[in-house]
Amino acid sequence: MTNFNNSKMNVDALFLGPKSENAVFFKEMMEYAVTEHMHWRSGYHPEDPEYVTTVDRYAPDYRDTLYRTEGILNQLSSKLKTTSIPWFSPRYMGHMNADTLMISNLAYVMAMMYNPNNCAQESSPTTTQLELEAGLDLCAMFGYDVNRSWGHITSGGTVANYEGLWVARNIKTLPLAMSKHPQAQHLLKDKTERALLNMPTNAVLDLIDELKKKGIFEEVRDMTCRGEGVEQGKLGKLLVPQSKHYSWLKAMDILGLGQQNIVQLPVDDSYRTDTAQMRQIVFSLIEQGEPILAVVAVVGTTETGAIDNVAELIALRKECESRFGISFYIHIDAAYAGYACAMFRDENNQFIEYDMLIQRYHNEGIFPPDIIWPKRDVYQSFRALQEADSITVDPHKVGFIPYAAGAICMKDKRIVDLISYHAAYVFEEVVEKGRKTEKPQNVLLGSSIMEGSKAGATAAAVWAAHRLVPLNILGYGKVIAAGLTTANWLIESMNASAPLEIEERKFEIVAMPAPDFHMVNFMFKEVGNRSLEKQNQLNKRLYELCSYAAGRSYTNDFLTSSTSLTAEEYGDNPQNFCRLMGFSDQEWEKTHSLYVLRAAIMTHCLRDKQHFSDFWQELKGIFVSKLQQLIDEENKVTHSKQKITL
Amino acid sequence: MTNFNNSKMNVDALFLGPKSENAVFFKEMMEYAVTEHMHWRSGYHPEDPEYVTTVDRYAPDYRDTLYRTEGILNQLSSKLKTTSIPWFSPRYMGHMNADTLMISNLAYVMAMMYNPNNCAQESSPTTTQLELEAGLDLCAMFGYDVNRSWGHITSGGTVANYEGLWVARNIKTLPLAMSKHPQAQHLLKDKTERALLNMPTNAVLDLIDELKKKGIFEEVRDMTCRGEGVEQGKLGKLLVPQSKHYSWLKAMDILGLGQQNIVQLPVDDSYRTDTAQMRQIVFSLIEQGEPILAVVAVVGTTETGAIDNVAELIALRKECESRFGISFYIHIDAAYAGYACAMFRDENNQFIEYDMLIQRYHNEGIFPPDIIWPKRDVYQSFRALQEADSITVDPHKVGFIPYAAGAICMKDKRIVDLISYHAAYVFEEVVEKGRKTEKPQNVLLGSSIMEGSKAGATAAAVWAAHRLVPLNILGYGKVIAAGLTTANWLIESMNASAPLEIEERKFEIVAMPAPDFHMVNFMFKEVGNRSLEKQNQLNKRLYELCSYAAGRSYTNDFLTSSTSLTAEEYGDNPQNFCRLMGFSDQEWEKTHSLYVLRAAIMTHCLRDKQHFSDFWQELKGIFVSKLQQLIDEENKVTHSKQKITL
Repeated sequence: MTNFNNSKMNVDALFLGPKSENAVFFKEMMEYAVTEHMHWRSGYHPEDPEYVTTVDRYAPDYRDTLYRTEGILNQLSSKLKTTSIPWFSPRYMGHMNADTLMISNLAYVMAMMYNPNNCAQESSPTTTQLELEAGLDLCAMFGYDVNRSWGHITSGGTVANYEGLWVARNIKTLPLAMSKHPQAQHLLKDKTERALLNMPTNAVLDLIDELKKKGIFEEVRDMTCRGEGVEQGKLGKLLVPQSKHYSWLKAMDILGLGQQNIVQLPVDDSYRTDTAQMRQIVFSLIEQGEPILAVVAVVGTTETGAIDNVAELIALRKECESRFGISFYIHIDAAYAGYACAMFRDENNQFIEYDMLIQRYHNEGIFPPDIIWPKRDVYQSFRALQEADSITVDPHKVGFIPYAAGAICMKDKRIVDLISYHAAYVFEEVVEKGRKTEKPQNVLLGSSIMEGSKAGATAAAVWAAHRLVPLNILGYGKVIAAGLTTANWLIESMNASAPLEIEERKFEIVAMPAPDFHMVNFMFKEVGNRSLEKQNQLNKRLYELCSYAAGRSYTNDFLTSSTSLTAEEYGDNPQNFCRLMGFSDQEWEKTHSLYVLRAAIMTHCLRDKQHFSDFWQELKGIFVSKLQQLIDEENKVTHSKQKITL
Repeated sequence: MTNFNNSKMNVDALFLGPKSENAVFFKEMMEYAVTEHMHWRSGYHPEDPEYVTTVDRYAPDYRDTLYRTEGILNQLSSKLKTTSIPWFSPRYMGHMNADTLMISNLAYVMAMMYNPNNCAQESSPTTTQLELEAGLDLCAMFGYDVNRSWGHITSGGTVANYEGLWVARNIKTLPLAMSKHPQAQHLLKDKTERALLNMPTNAVLDLIDELKKKGIFEEVRDMTCRGEGVEQGKLGKLLVPQSKHYSWLKAMDILGLGQQNIVQLPVDDSYRTDTAQMRQIVFSLIEQGEPILAVVAVVGTTETGAIDNVAELIALRKECESRFGISFYIHIDAAYAGYACAMFRDENNQFIEYDMLIQRYHNEGIFPPDIIWPKRDVYQSFRALQEADSITVDPHKVGFIPYAAGAICMKDKRIVDLISYHAAYVFEEVVEKGRKTEKPQNVLLGSSIMEGSKAGATAAAVWAAHRLVPLNILGYGKVIAAGLTTANWLIESMNASAPLEIEERKFEIVAMPAPDFHMVNFMFKEVGNRSLEKQNQLNKRLYELCSYAAGRSYTNDFLTSSTSLTAEEYGDNPQNFCRLMGFSDQEWEKTHSLYVLRAAIMTHCLRDKQHFSDFWQELKGIFVSKLQQLIDEENKVTHSKQKITL
């Protein structure tokens, strides 16, 4: 294959398109995917007898079964067409959904015909390799050393987060287990229990090497929590931003650690983890002698797209190590924005210097001249990812892969030994031991990850996407930039727009400014309204009118999602924005919640300024009619109330 | 739609077929699946501007990107064709793999085009419903009350097993939590801690109802292990057959319970859990005051397809409840054989009486007259499934669905409250609270299951399969019977076959008799050989010659899998079979392992006796040439040794 970098990638040619513009190509390729497999079948031992003859195939029950198949597919198609959400259209701006890459859909189908199971390479000789390659693609994007790291596909970010915490938990108990093993104790050099519970990841992994040399690793491993179960309250606290995804609550439950052992890190007014408070919390835990199980930073929060200051977290860990001799595991939940790391890498996978980056963005038309992205601290956060112990990233979000494809990358693949298993019937000894060195492709994924059986087709989809769209500034960088550009224009347009007038009432459109990524939180505000509760009600109702709640999404003109920014999750930070909109502090105290419309802008269709302007004009018109509908409803209620009063 | 039961289902018309016999139909339907979606796109707001014009699409970088897409797909196709395993052919008899249902592949693709995410109904209005329907299909098949039970799809049996144990673990700690809550204590009526740790599932679920009435359920739930973490060693033992799948080891690690708390139940000479010893172990644990976290029975073990005596386990629990007032959770791992429950159900989902069942099998041509299946105790095991608390079953095994599709069914859906969560941004309040009662379709799967994001397409694939192939004797019953028939004929033919003669050496083919399901374990035995080690080596090498280890599977004439029946997993039970083959007890004592070739017979192609006979003649020829190859290798080694000696 020729090198991709020699030619330019056209973003529009990656997707089927909002009007199925690439229908002809897509159908041709789909036909190819299916036909190649069919010929593979018919070419396999062509001497074999035909078990079903053409005459058999004309039997009434045979035809009947085929017609019935068709009938059920007709029914399924009707159902899908009636209620599905048109992710592909720029009219959808809500969850992290958009059109998906043609190549990933085609690769999925192509591989699905062969139905490989990536649990064991024996059941997936091709796609296990593709999964490992795709995993290393992601490791390389994050700046991990591909010879020392590893990554694999999960069913989603939730499972990836579980796996990160699983590893963090098990590594925490290894030094403790060693302290109880007569032949391992001396390796610890009389460390206190406290010291054992606060060792750097790397130091514990080096100890594993020592244990292996002595041939007692398995024995010691059986004495970790894996063998003995979790000791309640012993392993310390998991620090997670207050704005946490609920998968962390599930994770603490599932892993037997208890949700009470989550310490919530407050967020600052940019909705990121407040680094000053994080420092304070970490120091005070250290002072109390409480171990830190792990600290999670989020790169792209689900509600506001905020990108935690990873560089500060890494620096904090270094400081704790040198000042107190205390370390902790760092996991990054980059399910949403992880793929954006591609925006910082050049064709040789080098992390580009900031000034050069901005220059290239503009010189090569990745961003239009009026867009400056990212903020410097966001840039530093992506740069610091390489120091994290593990990273969750979702190909099915900003990787533009169909569901379900999450992934986890681990900086040091030695960590896998803490969770790995073997099953006799899948991973037979002869192949495993006898050939492992000569045939390194003999990978037994199911023994080293949380899940067991898994579709090899997913690996093919991710692998093929990475081949076509490289994980650098000219590949995914270009695709993601399209959404970022649109997000920025949208915020600008909303905030610059004159109030919409409907029946002598005026409604401003207000967007929260300067997001770290392409999540736009916006709301409508009636001019003159001083009640935050009324404000929230207005936007709740607007959400309903712009979502599946209003009925068939297909006939809706605009679709979005929504969320509440509550004091519980964000402290008083939303208050600043409430003030800006003219709500008094009492109003905030009373409500402690700001309801916002929430739009992840992933569409590639509006990166042309003229297209965007036309879209914005149209969108304003839609907003007017949605507000009109809302006012009509209000009037109807008032009217019927009046009737009752009469 | 007309009622399926009025017409006969033709098994051959369900699959693409080993020579792509149904190619024309499949391609037509694939075209339909894709085209319908394309028109859905182009019909959505046809007034919207075309962002990409036909002229744009002829730009060099646009064409280049398309050609590159094609090139990568070419490359992927080559890779897949080179190394994939021909599951579809009767020449593949190994893991639980065969051809998959056409309808499930087509439904998958159709739904994938819309890319629904079953994490939340908002992102999958159609497919969340389909998932619930498919889940209830399975519940009904197992005999659960569909109004009280629930089931859902997981990424595989491993995750389903985790979820079963998760529920079992959390329910175990609820009474303990109640005992610590001032307003909940009195509901327990002064039970001892021991009694609290041994309550029947149903009684705990009734307590949840009481807690909800008092409005303190959430508070108490936070005091279970979910909130506080697992107390090491407190929750008792998980009883799992010694032949356990390794997912149970992973489960005990992940859930923080510790692998040491697994008690292995010995198996009997039919490779099922030894019920007498199980009784003894349960009674002795009770005597020791050790709680039983859960007991797992396996319906279709991965190595021998053994079906545990579920009825005896259910009876044992009843006995423990009435004699000692002690109960325990029962989970069934029916990942492999679960779908076979369809073989016992009539068109009205009634469990058919044994004699009537055998009669119908023969009258309606489901089994040929010479096959009597199942054994009576296997029948009783399937009948007793309805009493289990939860059941794992894999659509991607005997459901003939492509990867990855596992499932779990729970008898009492109230149990979900012990593990459920909510996330503000996915499950917005307005919809959740305001409409839940009026719109019961507002399902938030991600908040009630282990996984988060998940492909709605999988749900469509399972749902569509269940519509076409009903979960009864005439649907899945017929398809599964084809494999069972072939398995029985194969065992019979192997054991009746004269030894194969190669260069004056004689090799018998020996199959282990009377499996519970369609897993055939067989081996070659050289006449005159008395060394079990040599015997195992012979079969190991034969496995290698009949697997991907020998090189490209496509050019292999026969493919199988293998496993070792070891004393560690099966005690001395394999010894009986070794004796039958003429190996002394000392040989068994020395080796403690019997290497077998392992073939799950799932093919639908050999259910015709003539087809089978022809296949068997061919297969014997293949075995002869494999043995010849092996002997040639041996001779070469001997020859080169002689040379060295000279």
